[in-house]
Amino acid sequence: MTVPRGTVILGVDPGLAGTGWGVITVGERGILRLERYGCIETKAATPLVDRLKQIFVALSAVIDEFSPSVMAVEELFFMKRATAVAAVGQARGAILLAAALKNISVSEYNPRTVKIALTGFGSADKQQIQHMVKAVLKLSVIPCPDHAADALAMAICHLHTAKY
Amino acid sequence: MTVPRGTVILGVDPGLAGTGWGVITVGERGILRLERYGCIETKAATPLVDRLKQIFVALSAVIDEFSPSVMAVEELFFMKRATAVAAVGQARGAILLAAALKNISVSEYNPRTVKIALTGFGSADKQQIQHMVKAVLKLSVIPCPDHAADALAMAICHLHTAKY
Repeated sequence: MTVPRGTVILGVDPGLAGTGWGVITVGERGILRLERYGCIETKAATPLVDRLKQIFVALSAVIDEFSPSVMAVEELFFMKRATAVAAVGQARGAILLAAALKNISVSEYNPRTVKIALTGFGSADKQQIQHMVKAVLKLSVIPCPDHAADALAMAICHLHTAKY
Repeated sequence: MTVPRGTVILGVDPGLAGTGWGVITVGERGILRLERYGCIETKAATPLVDRLKQIFVALSAVIDEFSPSVMAVEELFFMKRATAVAAVGQARGAILLAAALKNISVSEYNPRTVKIALTGFGSADKQQIQHMVKAVLKLSVIPCPDHAADALAMAICHLHTAKY
C-alpha cells in the first residue's frame, strides 16, 4: 500500500555542525507538497552539551509545528571514520530522542537506498540527488544548504520505500 | 579550591546496552557519601529509538531525585572501533541531553585521567579501579555491575580533578 494521503514526513540529515530537515505532505492524488525546510547549525566553539541541546530544541519545535507522523533519517553505520561517527552519533542521539519523546516513528535509510529511491540507481552523485529533489517537489531552485536538500531526499525516499 | 561541601556528583558510564550511574555527595570534612548507584539496561531486540528514550527517561529520573550539580562522564573520542563509537555515541547524545535539559554542567574525563585520579597511575586495570571505588566509598562489596562501578569511579575522578 502506498503512503496515505495527508501523511506528513519529516526528513532529517543528522550532523553536529549542521542538521538538515525538511517536511513534506502527501496531498491529493499523491501530489507532494513541500511544507518547509531548514538547517540547524551549531558552532564548533560551543560546548558539545549545548550544541546537542540546540539541535534537540530546534527539531522539537519543527515537530511541534508540523506534527509529522514519521521521521526519516540516514543510517549511521555505513560511516567509517570513528571521529565522524562520534560527532554524528551524538547528534543523532539527540535527534532520535526528539522523535521518541513526541512518539513519532523513525525509519532509517542508508545512502544507497536513498539514491535508488530518487534516481533509480545506487551510484548517483550528490548533484543528481539534488536535481531530483528539485524536480519531485517542483521547486524553482535546489534547496540550500546541502543538508536541507539531503533531508528532503530522505523524506522522499521514505515516501517511495515505506510499506503502509 | 576543592569541591565545596554539599556538592552532589553524578558519574555516568555511557553505553547503549548498559549505562552505569552513581551519585556521591561531598559531606562534612570532605567525607564522601554514596547516595545510590545503578545500571540502566536496554535490550538489543528493542528498537534503537526506544532504547535511547529508556536511557534518557531513567537518567532524567535520577537527576530529578538527587539534583546533582555536575555530571561526570567518560570521553568518547579515545575509542577506536566505529561500530562501538556509533552505539556509545548515540547513547551519549541522550545522556548529555538529559543533563543539558536540566541545566547540569558536564565534565568529561578520559580513562587515563580516571585511572590516575583513583590509583595514582595511568595503567591501572579494571580490578584496581573497582577496589579503589570500594575503598574510597567505604563499601563492603565492589558495586555491581561493572558499569555502575565505572560510573562511581567517574564521580570520584571529578572530585579529585575538578577545579572549583
